Amino acid sequence: MAITLSRMGVKYTQPSSAVRDKLRPVYGENADSLIASSQVIALNFQTVAAANNYWRH
Amino acid sequence: MAITLSRMGVKYTQPSSAVRDKLRPVYGENADSLIASSQVIALNFQTVAAANNYWRH
Amino acid sequence: MAITLSRMGVKYTQPSSAVRDKLRPVYGENADSLIASSQVIALNFQTVAAANNYWRH
Amino acid sequence: MAITLSRMGVKYTQPSSAVRDKLRPVYGENADSLIASSQVIALNFQTVAAANNYWRH
Amino acid sequence: MAITLSRMGVKYTQPSSAVRDKLRPVYGENADSLIASSQVIALNFQTVAAANNYWRH
Amino acid sequence: MAITLSRMGVKYTQPSSAVRDKLRPVYGENADSLIASSQVIALNFQTVAAANNYWRH
Repeated sequence: MAITLSRMGVKYTQPSSAVRDKLRPVYGENADSLIASSQVIALNFQTVAAANNYWRH
Repeated sequence: MAITLSRMGVKYTQPSSAVRDKLRPVYGENADSLIASSQVIALNFQTVAAANNYWRH
Repeated sequence: MAITLSRMGVKYTQPSSAVRDKLRPVYGENADSLIASSQVIALNFQTVAAANNYWRH
Repeated sequence: MAITLSRMGVKYTQPSSAVRDKLRPVYGENADSLIASSQVIALNFQTVAAANNYWRH
Repeated sequence: MAITLSRMGVKYTQPSSAVRDKLRPVYGENADSLIASSQVIALNFQTVAAANNYWRH
Repeated sequence: MAITLSRMGVKYTQPSSAVRDKLRPVYGENADSLIASSQVIALNFQTVAAANNYWRH
């Protein structure tokens, strides 16, 4: 779910899937891009976890 | 809504739509810019989700 | 309000308005700087929205 | 737990463990990558701490 | 207060005030460093605002 | 405490203290690294402050 949200953010900014596919190998092999990506996922995970009230019940 | 907020932040910093249009192809093809953009969207999505009390009701 | 807070953060770090004016065209035409600026605005907007209890009442 | 979440974010973006292993020495010796990594961990730690209601009970 | 916290974070990482003074003109004239600094201030302002319960009373 | 958490994040990513010691002078003299470090501390301080319920009682 956090990952779906992260993908949506990228999709909105670059709607062309052809361009996104071209970029994937670039950042997939770059350590800093991977770290930045996992930061976006971490932010979205905060939202999802809070939305689910941290699965408390 | 999170995306409207993200656009507003950019619009405020660079009010000229001519300049923004010129920049769009640059960051649209740059993986790190796309990741950074989706981070802004993630932050604004946190705000929107909290504002809606996570659509709990 | 979120934008006033963002300006204040910059103003504090660089008190000289002459230097700030000189820098404005630089980051205003740089996509990554614009994205970073809108991230600061997003953070401050979170604060303002929470402070206003998300305008719930 | 915060670290498991951080690893998961990277794993999702780069599923190949061979590529991840190749990248590890690169960012492990780069101060800025280490700082960025610890930022992701900090974000996930916020989530975990909140999920556990800050171990209040 | 948010600014005091931001200064403390820098002070801890670089305890030498001589080095900090040498660095100040460098980032003070760099737009991206100023934006990054105001991001730290924004984060600390979130903490201070929440700590004061957003000055609601 | 926020600083202990920040150190832990770095320690986990680079377990070798020899490498960490080698890197310290590099980022200690780089303004952007110092700003990034203080951002991690700011995030962890948010967590610690919330965990302590902002020292309200």
